[in-house]
Amino acid sequence: MCQLLGMNCNTPTDILFSFEGFHRRGGLTDHHADGWGIAFFEGAGVRLFIDDKPSSDSPVADLVRRYPIKSKNVIAHIRKATQGEVRLENCHPFVREMWGQYWIFAHNGDLKAFNPPKGSHYQAVGSTDSEHAFCHILEQLRQRWDRAPEPGQLFDEVARLSAEIRAHGTFNFMLSNGEWLIVHCATQLHYIVRQAPFNTAHLVDDDVSVDFSTLTTAQDRVAVIATLPLTDNEVWTALAPGELLMLRDGAPLFSLRS
Amino acid sequence: MCQLLGMNCNTPTDILFSFEGFHRRGGLTDHHADGWGIAFFEGAGVRLFIDDKPSSDSPVADLVRRYPIKSKNVIAHIRKATQGEVRLENCHPFVREMWGQYWIFAHNGDLKAFNPPKGSHYQAVGSTDSEHAFCHILEQLRQRWDRAPEPGQLFDEVARLSAEIRAHGTFNFMLSNGEWLIVHCATQLHYIVRQAPFNTAHLVDDDVSVDFSTLTTAQDRVAVIATLPLTDNEVWTALAPGELLMLRDGAPLFSLRS
Repeated sequence: MCQLLGMNCNTPTDILFSFEGFHRRGGLTDHHADGWGIAFFEGAGVRLFIDDKPSSDSPVADLVRRYPIKSKNVIAHIRKATQGEVRLENCHPFVREMWGQYWIFAHNGDLKAFNPPKGSHYQAVGSTDSEHAFCHILEQLRQRWDRAPEPGQLFDEVARLSAEIRAHGTFNFMLSNGEWLIVHCATQLHYIVRQAPFNTAHLVDDDVSVDFSTLTTAQDRVAVIATLPLTDNEVWTALAPGELLMLRDGAPLFSLRS
Repeated sequence: MCQLLGMNCNTPTDILFSFEGFHRRGGLTDHHADGWGIAFFEGAGVRLFIDDKPSSDSPVADLVRRYPIKSKNVIAHIRKATQGEVRLENCHPFVREMWGQYWIFAHNGDLKAFNPPKGSHYQAVGSTDSEHAFCHILEQLRQRWDRAPEPGQLFDEVARLSAEIRAHGTFNFMLSNGEWLIVHCATQLHYIVRQAPFNTAHLVDDDVSVDFSTLTTAQDRVAVIATLPLTDNEVWTALAPGELLMLRDGAPLFSLRS
């Protein structure tokens, strides 16, 4: 299956350290070699890099590793194809615009017999169950609200939609509009909130450490969410199957276990 | 003002040679230094690279120059900000999904007192007149058709919308859905169709030549469209002010002068 990586912060932060470990799982330390992608919010704008090459062997991943893009919300995905060919239009994250905001989405899992009706606002371009699920979520939100509602209202509606969709299979996903990051755990998802006092972290996938105390200020707060913990000397919290979590400014805002 | 570059081919082709000259106009041989972007179709998927740094000094442009992405439809843009701050969300090309296809758009010019009504399907994220024009065009097409019409019908409707929008100012633009490329000339736009027998071309902006006969097959056909000619030893055709041109498979399909 695929792997997911997300970051949500209170100040624009680069994801170089986490991506260093994560991208190695795309063909090097793990077998997720059917493409990858990463989306960064910068203000209201989005930078999306997708590639149908393995992330451990991609010139685009090479750029991302060297170019410290600072962002408050990031979603990355390494793909092990289950549905949909290995083609660019099937690489996650997917992007759409809703209510004058960009929305980004990535999914880890496999949905069976999931055939939502054709949307009047959003349609999938590729053939993945994932993009169909994303378009279905947006379509339902858009039909309910003409403009962005409060985060709490959105959270409740996404919870309802997640429960509906996960009846079709495994539905770990990450969703962001640049203000907040919503993550849903079906099987595996772990997170950590880093804040002062910052310490040194050491990657699982490579012998690399970073001392965050030299890179941060006392006010910084960064939440990192990943399918599996990325570091081996920090305490990661496992989300429960069925748990939905909304993060804003590097901290949990709403959560629901069902 | 900004500069535009487009490519439309009958076989996936890399744009390295044209981009080599074009990207130098972003801060080096010309003064378009307020960001840049390039969008490539690969099948139904889109690769979008945007940057708010000058293209002559951008690590992302560096990647594009070294990575021979093969595409049948490309739109690139170098920005000289007239409306909208220098921010990522204001960099062209812009992307939206319509009828299950990605659509890309870039604009060179300046629209005054252009305030289309808020769309029910498409809204601008940034503050440029350009993105508002793109969303307005999509909104009108989407309200008229529930699914993609024939290219000829689309061309006629885009012609009508272009005439309406250009009453507000300068409206050179490029638009593609991955099957065809539509270009509209308000002030300056030049194109060339390269096909067998292929010759050697020499860049205006740099002392670089390429012998296309060594890189192509006899069936290849490539149309390149740019604000100003990119080579100094080939004959480029100037579009007339008010001319709209749809290209498919590297050749003009429909054109209208008005």
